[in-house]
Amino acid sequence: DIVQALSINKAGALAGKTLLITAGPTHEPIDPVRFIGNRSSGRMGYAIATAAAQQGATVTLISGPTALSTPHGVERINVSTALEMHDAVMQHIKGKAIFIAAAAVADYRIATPAAQKIKKSTAQTSLTLIPNPDIVAEAAALPNRPYIVGFAAETEAVIDNARAKRERKGLDMIAANQVGPGLGFDTEDNCLHILSEHAERTLGPAPKPSLANELLLLIADAVNEQH
Amino acid sequence: DIVQALSINKAGALAGKTLLITAGPTHEPIDPVRFIGNRSSGRMGYAIATAAAQQGATVTLISGPTALSTPHGVERINVSTALEMHDAVMQHIKGKAIFIAAAAVADYRIATPAAQKIKKSTAQTSLTLIPNPDIVAEAAALPNRPYIVGFAAETEAVIDNARAKRERKGLDMIAANQVGPGLGFDTEDNCLHILSEHAERTLGPAPKPSLANELLLLIADAVNEQH
Repeated sequence: DIVQALSINKAGALAGKTLLITAGPTHEPIDPVRFIGNRSSGRMGYAIATAAAQQGATVTLISGPTALSTPHGVERINVSTALEMHDAVMQHIKGKAIFIAAAAVADYRIATPAAQKIKKSTAQTSLTLIPNPDIVAEAAALPNRPYIVGFAAETEAVIDNARAKRERKGLDMIAANQVGPGLGFDTEDNCLHILSEHAERTLGPAPKPSLANELLLLIADAVNEQH
Repeated sequence: DIVQALSINKAGALAGKTLLITAGPTHEPIDPVRFIGNRSSGRMGYAIATAAAQQGATVTLISGPTALSTPHGVERINVSTALEMHDAVMQHIKGKAIFIAAAAVADYRIATPAAQKIKKSTAQTSLTLIPNPDIVAEAAALPNRPYIVGFAAETEAVIDNARAKRERKGLDMIAANQVGPGLGFDTEDNCLHILSEHAERTLGPAPKPSLANELLLLIADAVNEQH
């Protein structure tokens, strides 16, 4: 703990900055035992939270269900569903300098989750899904909003999809990566394509802690240029 | 390792017996990043595998996705979907003395998983689900089958639902527990109602390792009475 505490740099690139970070998947209940999830491990968001605290930021981490430990010096708020994550973000975003939305929030939830475990039948059945709120787009539409960084996990046309997503949602920056077998989710190494209004950069392939540090330096530069 | 190895009892209640155990949830893919899962942690099945090896059995563990370590002395086979678990069970069940089906296998899978990540739209949508094979019932219908123990996680009418499930599937024994907030899944303590043709017993509430030991002693007694 002493070693970790010493590594927090009061003169770091993010000294004095307040960061809100989301991480991990969300679980959308089907019934009390079943849910729709996704393959996010939470590692990228946790790596960003860890690095941000080490660079001197005050970090609030809103986390979906993961098996990861809370990074040293980080305030962690646990949520399960996209609606819970939405409410936690809207509650904590006010006054933050930077919002990094690294969670893999479910786009849809079950229209009417069952109160009791659904019994198996031999018939075909179906689940009706309704869209969840778009947390990062809603955050980007707030007055006096922070600098906002989104993520895009894509299986195809990564850069084009990410560029369109950044503009459609009104984000300052987007970090895109390709997912699929051996890439992105549930892996230690990753590659990030960083797109902002005036710049495009590729970081990695590298371990997520290195990527997190590089990404935060880019964000710190962009935020300092704004002011 | 030496301490653990010493705890394996060559004269234990299951000495010389071969056990096949399933544990954990299954993940049924919706697209490359989304899946339907369930709240099984895998702890009960892993506790049974650990205790069975300590009681002298030769243990094969077929495991869905979990964050748990392989128990000492246990052969572990990793699977993800219900179909993969089905195939692994059918491949490894032959010649086993006992089959304990502790996995929380998904009853349904997505009829046609998408090859690429499904794009978000603002419209309501639906998923068509089709039934998965009933692994434990299929195992119970095999010729020269092992002694078969199933599990029933129920949110209501626990004993009645479990008794009906045991008879419908042709199992030798069923271990039933109530699930819901603070109970069953993702918890350390548990309560098991054990039903066989001639006996009903309640074990616990107790930590899962203790329940596993008690359950295996009941199974060993039943198997020894058969011969």
